[in-house]
Amino acid sequence: MRNIKLIIEYDGTNYCGWQKQKNGISIEEMIEKSIEKILKEKVELIGSSRTDAKVHAKGQVANFFTNTRVPAEKICNALNSVLPEDIKIIHSEEVSKEFHSRYDSKGKKYSYLIVNREVPLALYRNYAAHVKYDLNLGNMQEACKYFLGEHDFSAFRSTGSSVKTSVRNIMLLELIKRDEFITVNIEANGFLYNMVRIIVGTLIDVGRGKIKPNEIKDIIQSKDRKRAGATAPPQGLYLEKVYY
Amino acid sequence: MRNIKLIIEYDGTNYCGWQKQKNGISIEEMIEKSIEKILKEKVELIGSSRTDAKVHAKGQVANFFTNTRVPAEKICNALNSVLPEDIKIIHSEEVSKEFHSRYDSKGKKYSYLIVNREVPLALYRNYAAHVKYDLNLGNMQEACKYFLGEHDFSAFRSTGSSVKTSVRNIMLLELIKRDEFITVNIEANGFLYNMVRIIVGTLIDVGRGKIKPNEIKDIIQSKDRKRAGATAPPQGLYLEKVYY
Repeated sequence: MRNIKLIIEYDGTNYCGWQKQKNGISIEEMIEKSIEKILKEKVELIGSSRTDAKVHAKGQVANFFTNTRVPAEKICNALNSVLPEDIKIIHSEEVSKEFHSRYDSKGKKYSYLIVNREVPLALYRNYAAHVKYDLNLGNMQEACKYFLGEHDFSAFRSTGSSVKTSVRNIMLLELIKRDEFITVNIEANGFLYNMVRIIVGTLIDVGRGKIKPNEIKDIIQSKDRKRAGATAPPQGLYLEKVYY
Repeated sequence: MRNIKLIIEYDGTNYCGWQKQKNGISIEEMIEKSIEKILKEKVELIGSSRTDAKVHAKGQVANFFTNTRVPAEKICNALNSVLPEDIKIIHSEEVSKEFHSRYDSKGKKYSYLIVNREVPLALYRNYAAHVKYDLNLGNMQEACKYFLGEHDFSAFRSTGSSVKTSVRNIMLLELIKRDEFITVNIEANGFLYNMVRIIVGTLIDVGRGKIKPNEIKDIIQSKDRKRAGATAPPQGLYLEKVYY
């Protein structure tokens, strides 16, 4: 058996998310079906991150085991020829049998796009969150500092996943503003369920003046989900990169 | 009668273009129908630019005459509440009866987004042109200089429009590269039919080495459409701003 690693880009707009579900079409099953079509073999895809419905990826990673003799580098183009237009494989390679895209991940990078203006979005409606309130970027940037480092992020996760620990280490959290676009870049050794979207929702509350920057410290310590902001909408979120 | 000016953003993906056509739904008719719904009055919308199918706009301008007493500034929100999600009005105001969005335009700014990489696009497939060939950005930038200024751009227009003169003045033509994204910004006192897309197609040929930068001068002088590059695809094109 050979172990094949894929790097995947997708537009999550029309999917129920990465993971297979009863009520919708998942990205995972679209890729599995395409692999079956190309390699004439049923495989089980292991994804690094279970992105939610409408969430996008530029660098999702997945792996699968196969008996095929097709060269690993050629699997990329072959899959792209049968995949739907909103899912494309960026890269394919053979890796050691021990490689597991989820368990071996050492960290991940996400970005989140906000469009800050009064008028609703036409062009970016599926690719950004719309915030119509005036946002104080300086306050949001100050708040970012309090998230950095190793903390128990229980206040910043949704129920619905079972993980051993809710301690995570955020290495990067920055905001970049260009005209009406605010990009949030965040990197950590791992993320709890909905953690990025709740952090972004909380930063938006800081920007609106509902939360003071230095309150973030207390909110983290409280481990109380109700004290953090709302979960920001999925369509602004991009899985950028998975580190191994 | 009052004359109302609108600034409009739209995602052109699902439309046959700005202008009404038999075989498809146009942006113009969607807005006209929405105005009728809101103001209970049939109006004729005058658009500044007849953008093609799949072309986007961040700052299309249109005007219409109405007897309504609804304050002009409130028309924006009212229209947005009934318009489809891929068309939004950014701004509405009352202007002098003489204002004509097309005839009074003093210039326009377009941008064009290219994604330059081997793998086909999933995320940006409807919002950028995909170029898989290696592009020499330096050569493309050198070529830009030859387009600047007043020229007869007959070599850079498609047949299908009847205008008095094909002389136009290009004030700005620049390329900005960020990772795999190349943005072309272009500003002129006016554009011939498909002019931006043919200029971009020609710049791509320069980037690929099919046309030398200093050949642009000859191509312009030849007034021969066949000597310029292919018309770049519509989905990379954005009408950014109309100047009055």
